[in-house]
Amino acid sequence: MSKLKGGFTLPGEAGYEALTLKMADKWGADVIRDSDGTVLSSEILNSGYGIYSTICIIRDHNEWAKAHPQQLQQTFLMTDPELASSDVLEVEIMKGFFREQFQVNNTEAAMKYWQVYDRTVNEEVPREKWSYDEKREVVTISGIQPFHMYTVSFLAYRIWEEISMYNHTTNNWDKEHLMQVDPRYPETREYLVNWMEEWCKSHPDTTVVRFTSLFYNFVWIWGADERKRNLFTDWGSYDFTVSDKALDDFAKEYGYSMTAEDFVNKGDRHVTHMPADQRKRDWMKFINSFVIEVAKELIDITHKYGKKAYVFYDDSWVGLEPYGERFKEFGFDGLIKCVFNGYEVRLCAGVPVETHEIRLHPYLFPVGLGGAPTFMEGGNPTLDAKKYWNNVRRALLRQPIQRIGLGGYLHLTEMFPDFQDYIEKISDEFRMMQEYHKAGKPYTIKPKVAVLHYWGKLRSWTLSGHFHETYMHDLIHVNEALAGLPVDVDFINFEDVKAGALEKYDIVINAGRAGSAWSGGDAWKDDEVVSRLYQWVYDGGAFIGINQPSAVEGYDSFYRMAPVLGVDEDTGAKVCHGKWQFDVEEDKDILTEGAFVPEKENRFLTDGKAKVLAAHDGNPDLTIHEFGKGYGVYMGGFSYTLENTRMLLNLLLAVGDKDSEGLYLTDNQYTECAYYPESHKLVVINNSDKEQKTSVKTEAGVKEFTIEAYDQAVMDL
Amino acid sequence: MSKLKGGFTLPGEAGYEALTLKMADKWGADVIRDSDGTVLSSEILNSGYGIYSTICIIRDHNEWAKAHPQQLQQTFLMTDPELASSDVLEVEIMKGFFREQFQVNNTEAAMKYWQVYDRTVNEEVPREKWSYDEKREVVTISGIQPFHMYTVSFLAYRIWEEISMYNHTTNNWDKEHLMQVDPRYPETREYLVNWMEEWCKSHPDTTVVRFTSLFYNFVWIWGADERKRNLFTDWGSYDFTVSDKALDDFAKEYGYSMTAEDFVNKGDRHVTHMPADQRKRDWMKFINSFVIEVAKELIDITHKYGKKAYVFYDDSWVGLEPYGERFKEFGFDGLIKCVFNGYEVRLCAGVPVETHEIRLHPYLFPVGLGGAPTFMEGGNPTLDAKKYWNNVRRALLRQPIQRIGLGGYLHLTEMFPDFQDYIEKISDEFRMMQEYHKAGKPYTIKPKVAVLHYWGKLRSWTLSGHFHETYMHDLIHVNEALAGLPVDVDFINFEDVKAGALEKYDIVINAGRAGSAWSGGDAWKDDEVVSRLYQWVYDGGAFIGINQPSAVEGYDSFYRMAPVLGVDEDTGAKVCHGKWQFDVEEDKDILTEGAFVPEKENRFLTDGKAKVLAAHDGNPDLTIHEFGKGYGVYMGGFSYTLENTRMLLNLLLAVGDKDSEGLYLTDNQYTECAYYPESHKLVVINNSDKEQKTSVKTEAGVKEFTIEAYDQAVMDL
Repeated sequence: MSKLKGGFTLPGEAGYEALTLKMADKWGADVIRDSDGTVLSSEILNSGYGIYSTICIIRDHNEWAKAHPQQLQQTFLMTDPELASSDVLEVEIMKGFFREQFQVNNTEAAMKYWQVYDRTVNEEVPREKWSYDEKREVVTISGIQPFHMYTVSFLAYRIWEEISMYNHTTNNWDKEHLMQVDPRYPETREYLVNWMEEWCKSHPDTTVVRFTSLFYNFVWIWGADERKRNLFTDWGSYDFTVSDKALDDFAKEYGYSMTAEDFVNKGDRHVTHMPADQRKRDWMKFINSFVIEVAKELIDITHKYGKKAYVFYDDSWVGLEPYGERFKEFGFDGLIKCVFNGYEVRLCAGVPVETHEIRLHPYLFPVGLGGAPTFMEGGNPTLDAKKYWNNVRRALLRQPIQRIGLGGYLHLTEMFPDFQDYIEKISDEFRMMQEYHKAGKPYTIKPKVAVLHYWGKLRSWTLSGHFHETYMHDLIHVNEALAGLPVDVDFINFEDVKAGALEKYDIVINAGRAGSAWSGGDAWKDDEVVSRLYQWVYDGGAFIGINQPSAVEGYDSFYRMAPVLGVDEDTGAKVCHGKWQFDVEEDKDILTEGAFVPEKENRFLTDGKAKVLAAHDGNPDLTIHEFGKGYGVYMGGFSYTLENTRMLLNLLLAVGDKDSEGLYLTDNQYTECAYYPESHKLVVINNSDKEQKTSVKTEAGVKEFTIEAYDQAVMDL
Repeated sequence: MSKLKGGFTLPGEAGYEALTLKMADKWGADVIRDSDGTVLSSEILNSGYGIYSTICIIRDHNEWAKAHPQQLQQTFLMTDPELASSDVLEVEIMKGFFREQFQVNNTEAAMKYWQVYDRTVNEEVPREKWSYDEKREVVTISGIQPFHMYTVSFLAYRIWEEISMYNHTTNNWDKEHLMQVDPRYPETREYLVNWMEEWCKSHPDTTVVRFTSLFYNFVWIWGADERKRNLFTDWGSYDFTVSDKALDDFAKEYGYSMTAEDFVNKGDRHVTHMPADQRKRDWMKFINSFVIEVAKELIDITHKYGKKAYVFYDDSWVGLEPYGERFKEFGFDGLIKCVFNGYEVRLCAGVPVETHEIRLHPYLFPVGLGGAPTFMEGGNPTLDAKKYWNNVRRALLRQPIQRIGLGGYLHLTEMFPDFQDYIEKISDEFRMMQEYHKAGKPYTIKPKVAVLHYWGKLRSWTLSGHFHETYMHDLIHVNEALAGLPVDVDFINFEDVKAGALEKYDIVINAGRAGSAWSGGDAWKDDEVVSRLYQWVYDGGAFIGINQPSAVEGYDSFYRMAPVLGVDEDTGAKVCHGKWQFDVEEDKDILTEGAFVPEKENRFLTDGKAKVLAAHDGNPDLTIHEFGKGYGVYMGGFSYTLENTRMLLNLLLAVGDKDSEGLYLTDNQYTECAYYPESHKLVVINNSDKEQKTSVKTEAGVKEFTIEAYDQAVMDL
């Protein structure tokens, strides 16, 4: 079979034309892109390759920004609560905030949204009791209750685009601070539309405009003190979409006004990891609608000039919502996701666009995440690449992705010829894999899985950001495990349950801390949700609950699914209640060697009938409980490892496919496989850093494999 | 100084008259008592000693009980929630309950209090939808929502007195099951009054009637399955005070009816460790009033016959409430408390009666708690006695107790002459100690301490039961530490705070799990409580918060005292918020060698200003924070050890007595001392199992001591 080419985006670099073309050939590239910090020379532009050009639409206009400071992007800030030791309190509102990022917006239009709160009673202080001294940046609150705590919420301009701010600070850049303009203001919007038109005219060689996201950055609020530089980061929050104009527009459209408190929420803000309220959902819908409207104008211009429009789904992605109902309205031709992990591949693959592209790691940069050496002395970019590829490959086997690519400075690879060879190898593997996908879907085990949480489909696969930012949530570990398992997975919410979604699934997973969006919080107060799940399990479904699944206060059990799980948690009120004694039944077919369940306290058996597979200090950690014809599985937590991934697969089979013949599964937990029935290809991968032997039961008999560390084998069946 | 005598209650034993009299002399006894299982012969009765006779008023009347089965004591029971898989459900109501303890009360008077609940929506199922089949003991519920969970709450007679049941089961007794009659029924009340009269007449030698508590036992509900024999135990709950008659009487008196749900509370019941509601408080008041009324009749009879009335404060003590407002109305002459720990001594000492007596451990019995050998081969009762004495002695130094005593079979001590000698030694020590108390109070350090919780004074010192039953609550560890420290301690509730109690104190301690009675739960929603505490600390007070102090949901901080403490906890909503970095400042003057703070997760600094003395994985474990002129101290938890007790003392001094000269404190944390200014006596005790050297700074200079393990030294100053 002749070597396949294409589906590869290469970061070109002016001054390294020969290298660019050599690598383009070696890696089978069909497209060359620029990166932040690199440009493409005309030799490259005219070499016959497709050309991606990166634009960051809201931050490349400092001149316009300076001329229109009231059209900069904004956010609400809330001061730290301060004690009033008399009936008057002065609050320096900028205290604690990073002055290079924020500037008070005390225009009349903005000040009508400012709020002062008595936090001791959680009530707003009437406006006539406070005044603002612009010069001192001080709010004086008078006639108030002494020995209560008070906060001031105010609108601030963001005067330093956050990605620029991060790069300056982390990589010691010393360039002009970029600012971000807000297309919410009609003048700025018009300016951006004209700019886009001009840009397209002046970039005839560009075949694909790579929008480095759209308008509104994920939230990143910095503090004044180096001991607490990061005040707040949430990759899914909408705090940076706000402005006096947006608030006014919202009030007109929705018939009610959002307040500062709707955003600052007692200082908690509304993090993606927590359930939202209706007002936040309205605001998200309002912003999504606006982002579609403005982006569509820009994309239409792009198309008018014969170029494709791809979006890089990171940075300023808020309001984009690739899993939202309206995403197709943008008209994007492709979506690019930078990936460290398998779940990010699935996140990308599931978006309804023609072309899905992943940008692999490592980035071609001297240092990597956290400042460790990569393409410099002391670095081992090939090993890094192997590990990242190992993370994402298992997900690439499950669902098709059309393109891969790299980013950064290509010349840095010159010192690392083994890296160049390794990229060639995996590019070839990638293209083969996509050929198998083209012939037909890979084999999946019988049970269909639904992950149930507050956001449902809207937050498919991801929670909010990368793995290393969300590792404290069980669900990201579950998602990462599922990303490469031979099982169909959907993400559903509680409204879906009420609309009858359960009948499509064999297994429902609910995983998270009590009150979180992932566990579900108050959604579990809906008896219809609870009752439908009872019935569905009773009739043969399986509910896997992790950490504090279905937890909500106010009922006879803390976990509403306790009757199904056979496990509940004592939040304190049951401290005088006796607990069932139990024996742990070892089951190596489920809890394999090296697999473990994180230990949680105050768990107990409800009816004493659950089979306990792991426990500590009298707390059941892993249980299986029969409920009618179905099962409840309880796990105290889930931590992503190769062994625990196998444990999860074993559980899916145990409660969702009791009659499984075990076809197309490896018998070594450090390996996995994918079988493509239409192309008769069996791909077996070694996910570990050691050689592994494994066998796979197929309809054509048992097949044996020996595979090098991180490597793979392909067999025709 | 000639040897003091008296203040000692000896358990006599018929058949061992010589031993009885010999030990009475050796131990300086002035009173001889009977015990459960022993009798006193006429030789003993006439030996010139005072005589205690034990009566258990409600359980020694099986004949009457059998003749009046509807006047037995009762309780509400709630079945385990069961799933309805159709619109009809049959519930076997006695399933899971211990049939030797309970029998259904389906009299018409009782059945009007039965309730069926749909637990999925937490609403009562109307009475017309269910019926009871007496023969099958089955409630059939019809016309209900399928796939909801249902429970039945019903009244049951208790047919086996729980202490008798425990002794039978634990010690393999094989006697007739004793039953407990309820004086709530007028016939039974009259019967008991007559019986008391007869008893007094027929026991002319008795000088003290030792009421082994009164009418209502602490709650102990047993299950049918040996894997879960104990369904519920709470030494402070009122579940065993209920009956159809009491419920009817309550409705008449209070103008509203209590329901089954008011007791079973979704199956949680109302445990002492959780805050109560107004209905429970009304019920407690109602029962207390009745217990006083009936007990007073019995006590008056006792007095009429020239005998004193002491009450043993354990077992059937519910409704007695020694720290209740009305306790003096009983007219008891003395209160006897069995003690394992120092806090139980303080509990006893603080009750307003003339005579306080503690019953020491070990009990003169072949085996001790948990079945370990005591007065038999393999036992070391002298070492046991030393350890128990060591626990209680430090508390005895702080507050006067008039009497000590033992219980059980005296003849068992014959094999252990060293035990007989040791009891002589500590009896002498005890009498000396009480002499010092008589002269005047011991020296205390400056700060006055209030322990703040939901129950306040009513639950002074104890939580609910012994240490080994409540060890999971931080506060019992704190109370045990405080019991022997040279500091005045009161227990106050939130109403006290609002009534201005804070001005009497220098330090307030609040310790416990969120939502518990000890932390305070919803009491912290009262802004007046919060604001008064802010002001009091700001003006110079110190607030010590342990575990989840002042925790309640709904405000800008989870701990309402977070501004004071400088520490708060993230319950999930702040997972995206940056946290202050901090350095741990070692301070051996506070956190001494061997002291530690239990580690809790998700704690963080609020304003970054707290001094962190201990931490783990970024969680501050022990902090001191300035707030106005006062301090907030945060501790993740508190565990009672000698070292941690010293740490607590150090904290009290650090935040409550900055100018302390350190008078009358030992400089070795394994020792403590008490100084009695009026009698000029300095008592130094060694709390450890090793010899210790220590010095004490006094107004007469520094004094040095070397003390054997568990021993003490006394010096005249």
